[in-house]
Amino acid sequence: MLRDHWYVAALGSELTTRPLSRQILGEHIALFRTEEGVPVALVDRCSHRGYPLSLGTVVNETLVCGYHGFTFGCDGVCVAVPGQDRVPSRADVHRFTLVEQGLWTWIWMGRGAPDFDRLPSVPRMTDHERWSSIAGMATIDARFDLLVDNLLDLSHETYLHKGSIGTPEVAETPIEVEADDGSGVVRVYRHMNAVECPPFYSTTTGLEGKVDRWQDIEYFPPGFYSLHSRIAPVGEPPLPDGRDDHAYHMTIFYGLTPASPGRVHDFWALSRDFCRDEPEIDSFLMKMQTDVVQEDVDALNILERRIQEEVEPREVSVKIDRGGLAARRILRAMADAADAPGPQ
Amino acid sequence: MLRDHWYVAALGSELTTRPLSRQILGEHIALFRTEEGVPVALVDRCSHRGYPLSLGTVVNETLVCGYHGFTFGCDGVCVAVPGQDRVPSRADVHRFTLVEQGLWTWIWMGRGAPDFDRLPSVPRMTDHERWSSIAGMATIDARFDLLVDNLLDLSHETYLHKGSIGTPEVAETPIEVEADDGSGVVRVYRHMNAVECPPFYSTTTGLEGKVDRWQDIEYFPPGFYSLHSRIAPVGEPPLPDGRDDHAYHMTIFYGLTPASPGRVHDFWALSRDFCRDEPEIDSFLMKMQTDVVQEDVDALNILERRIQEEVEPREVSVKIDRGGLAARRILRAMADAADAPGPQ
Amino acid sequence: MLRDHWYVAALGSELTTRPLSRQILGEHIALFRTEEGVPVALVDRCSHRGYPLSLGTVVNETLVCGYHGFTFGCDGVCVAVPGQDRVPSRADVHRFTLVEQGLWTWIWMGRGAPDFDRLPSVPRMTDHERWSSIAGMATIDARFDLLVDNLLDLSHETYLHKGSIGTPEVAETPIEVEADDGSGVVRVYRHMNAVECPPFYSTTTGLEGKVDRWQDIEYFPPGFYSLHSRIAPVGEPPLPDGRDDHAYHMTIFYGLTPASPGRVHDFWALSRDFCRDEPEIDSFLMKMQTDVVQEDVDALNILERRIQEEVEPREVSVKIDRGGLAARRILRAMADAADAPGPQ
Repeated sequence: MLRDHWYVAALGSELTTRPLSRQILGEHIALFRTEEGVPVALVDRCSHRGYPLSLGTVVNETLVCGYHGFTFGCDGVCVAVPGQDRVPSRADVHRFTLVEQGLWTWIWMGRGAPDFDRLPSVPRMTDHERWSSIAGMATIDARFDLLVDNLLDLSHETYLHKGSIGTPEVAETPIEVEADDGSGVVRVYRHMNAVECPPFYSTTTGLEGKVDRWQDIEYFPPGFYSLHSRIAPVGEPPLPDGRDDHAYHMTIFYGLTPASPGRVHDFWALSRDFCRDEPEIDSFLMKMQTDVVQEDVDALNILERRIQEEVEPREVSVKIDRGGLAARRILRAMADAADAPGPQ
Repeated sequence: MLRDHWYVAALGSELTTRPLSRQILGEHIALFRTEEGVPVALVDRCSHRGYPLSLGTVVNETLVCGYHGFTFGCDGVCVAVPGQDRVPSRADVHRFTLVEQGLWTWIWMGRGAPDFDRLPSVPRMTDHERWSSIAGMATIDARFDLLVDNLLDLSHETYLHKGSIGTPEVAETPIEVEADDGSGVVRVYRHMNAVECPPFYSTTTGLEGKVDRWQDIEYFPPGFYSLHSRIAPVGEPPLPDGRDDHAYHMTIFYGLTPASPGRVHDFWALSRDFCRDEPEIDSFLMKMQTDVVQEDVDALNILERRIQEEVEPREVSVKIDRGGLAARRILRAMADAADAPGPQ
Repeated sequence: MLRDHWYVAALGSELTTRPLSRQILGEHIALFRTEEGVPVALVDRCSHRGYPLSLGTVVNETLVCGYHGFTFGCDGVCVAVPGQDRVPSRADVHRFTLVEQGLWTWIWMGRGAPDFDRLPSVPRMTDHERWSSIAGMATIDARFDLLVDNLLDLSHETYLHKGSIGTPEVAETPIEVEADDGSGVVRVYRHMNAVECPPFYSTTTGLEGKVDRWQDIEYFPPGFYSLHSRIAPVGEPPLPDGRDDHAYHMTIFYGLTPASPGRVHDFWALSRDFCRDEPEIDSFLMKMQTDVVQEDVDALNILERRIQEEVEPREVSVKIDRGGLAARRILRAMADAADAPGPQ
C-alpha cells in the first residue's frame, strides 16, 4: 500500500455533520463536516480508550467522543475531557489533510506534509459550464490489483456488462497500449468504428444504428484512472485542430483507494458534455453505472475468495492484458521505491 | 482425502446448461451439460485470470468464461480467446471424467486415468422394471469421519430421527458387525423382529402393528454406502432359495463425497420394490428423507464446531460403535497406502 | 480467566427442563432443571462422541443425549448406554456446583471443591419484604476487561446512555476512589447534589426538579459488582444513625462472567426499596435497563473489534479512570497469584 499519494476518501455528499467511518490504507478514519461545513478527517480512534470517534457527535466546530466525551477540534487537538479542567496534551489525535474537488474529496495519506503537486486534476468535474457530472462509490472485498486488472482491460465489458455497455466488438477489437514507466502512466486505446451503440450511450445521445466508439484510458497509478469515451456518427473523426463538435464525450473517472489488504474502495464519477443539466439523464446514468459497478463488485468479490484459496496462482496472459501488465509493473516499481531506504 | 476413487459429484437433475460449482476433494469443479446434453466437469477456474468457469455460459458444446470470454470445449481445450486469433495451448483446463448411473453422476478424482473397475455398481437405481428411485443431496459443514460415524451406527435413529424412522427398538437391539479388511468392506446387521413400524415404512407399505424390520448395511469406503431395509409381516423370513415375496424392500444409498477438510457432500437415493411409480409415495418419501437428512446435517454441523474447539478429543466407545470403528480402521489403512511411495 | 471463583451462570428463570448451553471460562456447560426442579450443570459434551448434552432431553431426574441416548444423572454419572446393559465407568461427565440466590444462579468454576466462603452475598435480592427485584442478561463479544472498564467509570452514562440515566452532571462530577488491594475491593463514589433527575429515576420515584443523586460502586473482582444508587430530595442526607427514609434506594447488581477470551456474559439485577410489587414499574425498569445494557453491548462489541486490529494499544488515562485502573491492578494481581505455583 503506497502511502505518499492522494486518494479519494469520500464523495462530497457523504460528508455531513453525522460522521462516517472509512478505512483507508488500513487506517480507520472519521470523516465529517463541522456545523460550518468544513470537511474534516481525524483518525477514527479516541486517544482515551480507543472508541471510534466516528460514533461521536459534531458540536459546533468540534467532535465529541460518544463514549466518555473527550472533545476534539478540527485540527485533532483535544480541547476537553470529562471530570477535570486540565487536558493532557497526549490526548490529541492525528488529523488528515482533505481537498474537495468537484464531487470527490481527496485525502493525503503520506507520513509527511501533503504534496499538492501530486494532487490529480479533474477539471471536467469542476467546469460546470461545459460538463455535467454524477458520482458514486462501492467497496470491493478484493485486493487492489484485481480492480486495476479490471479497469485496464475493458474486453470484459462484452461478458460481464452485456446489455449496458458491453457489445461483441469490445472484446473483438485489439487495443494499443502506451506505458510510460518514467512518468508512471499507462494509456490504452481501443477505437471501434462503425459498431453497435450500447444502451448506455444510445439512450443518452439519441444516436441510432452504428457509431464510432472510442475508449481512451489513462491510468495514473496508484489511485486515479480516467476513461475518455467518444461516441460519434460513423466516419466523422475530430478535426485536425482538435474540434470534435459532432461527437458526444464522457469521461468515466475512477478513484481506486486501498481500504485494507483485501479490500478496495471504488469511487467513480461520470462527466459528460451533452444533455447537461438534464436530471432524467443523470438518473438513467446513475442507475446504469451503479449496476455496472455492482457487476464488477460481485465478480471481484468472488474472484478474491477463490484467489485466497490458491496455493500457487497461475495465469495465462494474452494481448488484451498488456495494459494491466504494464500497470502491475509500474505499481511494483513504486512499491519497491517506497520500500527503499532514504528519502522517497 | 483419498483421490483414486469414484465419488458422487451431482444428481443428474442438477446438471443443466446453467453450470453448477461444486467443491470435491478441495477442488472447485464446474459441472454442466452441453446443449446436446453431455455431462461435463471442468476445473472451475479459467486459465486466464482464475475466474470461476461455473459463472460462464454454455454456448453449443462449449463453455464461455463470464469475465473475458475465454472459451473451452468439453475436453477442456481452450478454443477461443478475445482480441486475437491465436489461442495459447497453455490456456487449456483440466477435464474430469463423469459417469451417469441412474439418478447419480460419478466423478473420477484420481490423478491417473479413471479406473472403471472401481466404479460402484447400483443396479437397483437403474433397473426401472423392478425398482422405483428418488434422490437428493445436502452439504454438511463437518469432517468426513463424522458422516461415516453417523451412517455406521444407526442406533442414533431412536434419538435424532424420532417420529420418522426412529423407534426405541433400534437403539435397544444389538448389532452384528463383519469387517473385511482385505476387501475393505464393512457390514452391520441389525435384525429387529416383531417391533414397531415407524411412519416412514408404515405409511408406504400399509403394514400395521408389529413388523420384522431388518437393517443390513454395506459400506464400501471411502464413498459408497447402502442400507438394505427389509420390512415384513412378523415371522415370515425369506425362503431358503432367497425369495422374499411377503417383504417390502428399500435400499437407502449414500454417496459420501469429501468437499474440503471440514465439509462433506451427503448424496442419497432410495430404491424400493413396492408402490413403484406412485408419485404420492415418491413425494412422501422425498419429504421424510429430506427431513431425516436435515436432522443429520444439523447435528453434524453442531458437532463439528464443538470438535474444532477441542484440544484433545476424548471418546468412550461401546458395542454399537463397532461398525464405525471398523470403518475408521479401513479408512486409515487406505490413507496410509495412498501416502506410501510407489504405485498405489 | 480466574477459575477459583463463583460466577453467575444463569438467571433462575432460564433454568427449565429444556437444557440451555452456555459457555463459561471457555467451557461449554449444559444447564437445566430436573422434573423435580433441581438446577443442574453438566459439562456440555457427551462422553461417547462429544455431542452437546444441552441438545438432549430431561427424563425424570436424568438427561438423555440427543444423538445416541447415553443417559446421565444429576451428578454426572452415566446410568445407561444403548444396545447393552453394562455401563462403562469412563462414561461419566463432570458436574458443576450451582447455588441459587434470588434471581441469579451461581456456579463454582474452580478445580477443587467449591469454596462457599467466597460466594457473594446479595441479601437485597432475597429479602422480598423490603426489596423488589428484576433481572436480565446479555452476552458481549468483547474481552472481560472492557466490561470492567465500562462499569467502573460511569461518566460514560452522559454520552452513551443519554436520555435514560445519563445527564451532563455525571461526567462533570469528580469521583472518589478507594481501592483496597488487600481485600481486593474497589469502591468509587460520585455524589451529585442538586442535579437533574434522569427519566430512569424521575418516572419511578415521582421526584420532580432537582435531586441529590449518589452513586456508590463496590466491585468485588473478578465477577461481582454493585452500584448503590440513592435518589433523594435536595439537602436531605441520611441521618447519623443511618436512617434514610426520604431517599429512594436502588442497587444495580452486575455479574461479570467470562465466556471465552473475547466474550463476556453481563448479568444484571435491580433491587429497589420503593414501589415494590408494582408490575408496571418492573416493566418500565426492565425496558429501560435492557436498553441501557444494549447500548453498552453495542459499544463494547465495536470497541473489541477495533482493539483486535491494534498492534500496539495506546491509552490516555485521566482522573475518571482511577476506579478502572485500580480494578485492572487487582485483577492482574489475582491472575499472577493464580498462575503462581503452590496452593492458591
